[in-house]
Amino acid sequence: MFRTAAVAAVVALAAVSAQAKPAPSAAADANAAIVAAALRDKALTDPTAYEIVESLTTEVGPRLAGSPGAHRATEWGVAKLKALGFRNVRAEAYTTPVWARGPESAEVVAPYPQHLVILGLGKSVPTPAGGVEADAVIFPSLAELLDAPMGSLNGKIAVVTQKMTRTQDGSGYGAAVRARGIGASEAARRGAVAFLVRSISTRDDRLPHTGGVSYLADAPKIPAAALSPSDATLLDNMASRGQPIRIRLNMASTASDAGAAWNVVGEIPGREKPEEIIVIGGHLDSWDPATGAIDDAAGIGITTAAARLVGSLKQPPRRTIRVVMWGSEETGGAGQAYYDAHKAETANTILAGESDLGADRIYTLRLPKGSAKAPQLKPLASVLAPLKIFINGQDAQFAGSDTEEIQKAGVPVVSFAQDASRYFDIHHSADDTLDKVDPEQLNQNVAAWTAFLYLVANSDIDFRALAVAAPAAKP
Amino acid sequence: MFRTAAVAAVVALAAVSAQAKPAPSAAADANAAIVAAALRDKALTDPTAYEIVESLTTEVGPRLAGSPGAHRATEWGVAKLKALGFRNVRAEAYTTPVWARGPESAEVVAPYPQHLVILGLGKSVPTPAGGVEADAVIFPSLAELLDAPMGSLNGKIAVVTQKMTRTQDGSGYGAAVRARGIGASEAARRGAVAFLVRSISTRDDRLPHTGGVSYLADAPKIPAAALSPSDATLLDNMASRGQPIRIRLNMASTASDAGAAWNVVGEIPGREKPEEIIVIGGHLDSWDPATGAIDDAAGIGITTAAARLVGSLKQPPRRTIRVVMWGSEETGGAGQAYYDAHKAETANTILAGESDLGADRIYTLRLPKGSAKAPQLKPLASVLAPLKIFINGQDAQFAGSDTEEIQKAGVPVVSFAQDASRYFDIHHSADDTLDKVDPEQLNQNVAAWTAFLYLVANSDIDFRALAVAAPAAKP
Repeated sequence: MFRTAAVAAVVALAAVSAQAKPAPSAAADANAAIVAAALRDKALTDPTAYEIVESLTTEVGPRLAGSPGAHRATEWGVAKLKALGFRNVRAEAYTTPVWARGPESAEVVAPYPQHLVILGLGKSVPTPAGGVEADAVIFPSLAELLDAPMGSLNGKIAVVTQKMTRTQDGSGYGAAVRARGIGASEAARRGAVAFLVRSISTRDDRLPHTGGVSYLADAPKIPAAALSPSDATLLDNMASRGQPIRIRLNMASTASDAGAAWNVVGEIPGREKPEEIIVIGGHLDSWDPATGAIDDAAGIGITTAAARLVGSLKQPPRRTIRVVMWGSEETGGAGQAYYDAHKAETANTILAGESDLGADRIYTLRLPKGSAKAPQLKPLASVLAPLKIFINGQDAQFAGSDTEEIQKAGVPVVSFAQDASRYFDIHHSADDTLDKVDPEQLNQNVAAWTAFLYLVANSDIDFRALAVAAPAAKP
Repeated sequence: MFRTAAVAAVVALAAVSAQAKPAPSAAADANAAIVAAALRDKALTDPTAYEIVESLTTEVGPRLAGSPGAHRATEWGVAKLKALGFRNVRAEAYTTPVWARGPESAEVVAPYPQHLVILGLGKSVPTPAGGVEADAVIFPSLAELLDAPMGSLNGKIAVVTQKMTRTQDGSGYGAAVRARGIGASEAARRGAVAFLVRSISTRDDRLPHTGGVSYLADAPKIPAAALSPSDATLLDNMASRGQPIRIRLNMASTASDAGAAWNVVGEIPGREKPEEIIVIGGHLDSWDPATGAIDDAAGIGITTAAARLVGSLKQPPRRTIRVVMWGSEETGGAGQAYYDAHKAETANTILAGESDLGADRIYTLRLPKGSAKAPQLKPLASVLAPLKIFINGQDAQFAGSDTEEIQKAGVPVVSFAQDASRYFDIHHSADDTLDKVDPEQLNQNVAAWTAFLYLVANSDIDFRALAVAAPAAKP
């Protein structure tokens, strides 16, 4: 909120300048810096991003790929992009496996009968009808489960209660999430009949966090669920008494190999080089227990609002900005579907970026290799500085799950690193709702994306060439 | 944690002194101040209170009056008091109405189909089989519901989305909880067929908070449930669009008029005046969705640990300290049952206190009227000061729900005011679990109760006489 009367005057001027003066040149001219800064400030009070998040969470709600909610979300996305003035708006259909949760329950039967709060992991197989009841083996870490001999869990329910570390950059997630991903298969290899994992969460509360299980091809598929952090602590404390713990687990779910999914696409067509495309977006699907406000209505709102602001200048950008609402990030396949549908455009896709780490503020920007000192991006550091965003010394390695396929095919990526300190308190739990979104932090994201997009879309910067020319990273 | 080597030396001395020198006198002698301070410091590292909370929440868990959990809790309480060396340990049976939750669900049917996270209010009647479905009327405050004309809610589901204010002293609860208490009956009077209320909670999350509904005698009894705060916000946002909102509600529950309940009692018998009794305690029952760590295993732990520390001196206290674990604070009747069973002792009950506002630190102490300057309590201010507790200028008005009956019968009460800033984030929700208890804050409570108990139990202070002699409060 650092807009002043003086800045407002510059905005008015900039809007005119942008219209009057086409700006294609190797180096960004002074005008570009002024317009980028003015757009940044306009973004800070623009209601679009929050309105998108409010609309999607209120009017659609949960929207796991293949569910009726996902179908409604697709219709919502097409209507929203059209209403906001995007062009070439369409829903690109593809086929996806579909999984749907059924009733779930768990309880300690002995020595201390207690209800356990669980949430089945996405794509988990159900228990047999009537459930499973077995003695539990509690492992305080995944490493201890991996150390257990083959056969040692025959007929048991394996439980991993490993905790997750809170980090600003989200790296604690990568370390912890293996237990959720491969834990079930590693337990099954050792004979287990079911698997429970402490939620991959940074908060100690009674809400479990779901997320996909990754069954390995060579292990039996066993039912897998997340315990709320508080329930994992309860099991740790019961286990400390040394008596056998008996658990009963009931999980129903249905799955099918082929359901309908859609990537929703809309564009701000470029005025000079419409074939050169900048792809940005978030994912439209969400896990089923929540309305998916931070994961990832926020990413949809941020990128759509930023593209719209750049497109709202009287003079369109030189290059095309394409917003994509990917349809199945959580369960997989959306990035592949996008790549398959747009293979022919890969070489002309200048850059890709995804916003998928919540609604909290950006603290650093990682640029494509070799581009940090490009003259076209010279204004960036000073435009982002008032937002308390610095340009990172490291190159962008990853933009998001949905851009991985086009990245593999050679598309350069950009990464706006959001502060993830609070993200994993909420992520994948029923608590991912609108009230977790701070409009001011959301708009800080929009401001950064808008300024960056404006500069790239109105320049001739060639990230591929810069990467080739860049010196090799020091080992 | 301000115990030092010098203090440790004093503790050793004090233990001997307390044994060697009976201390009955009108004014507390210097020795009393030393022993009280030494006990305070011992309490700060005493593991008893936390062990009690851990044991009750781990080995028993939820324990609503009349449930199997409450029966197990009673057995647990008797065994625990005996194991800790209390005397005259018994479970005093009484009869109580019993209510048990059944399956519950709610959803918005139109205009935007979404699941709602609810928790039936305690003692709510069930919906008819098959549930109720009706248009909703959303009231942002109870006052607006009360302003609605009779008949205006015919056939509707009334919803109150009033928010609760966070306060240190818990006064925000009193202001907000009326909506939960009388909202259903006031809605029913106006024709409503069901009632939903935003959880009486200071946190915006997806966990609903239960609590008793208070049906008024002259209104039809309609089903009543708490919405999670996030779901109440969702309904507010849907309502802002001006379209009719249709809700479906299903709630099952069972109730009976007469079930078994127990107040569990144990004593540190007085050495000189065993007939003079100080009654302290917490309540053993809890709401059903959680393990009742802060409500009120903490109160049980704090008061039991404090009484035990005073009783662990080589010389018992002059007066009897009685610890009571009341059996049905949440659903009512425990204080009446205690009064009925102990009517004959009322005149000799010197003082009563209850710990029932969580596990966070005490910040002020309210004494019985006229006693703040009593010579027997002279050491209190300096003993409590290192704990950051000040003696309040206001008299104690209320100690807890379970001591109200004996207070009405003339028993003076004391009130240790805990910091309630965080309490209503957790209270009555599934999130009331062990991990919410900070052992250091818990022991600050134990330290304060221990020092105070020691001084009162080893003195001849007569709170009734002091109250009579006290000047009338200024109007």
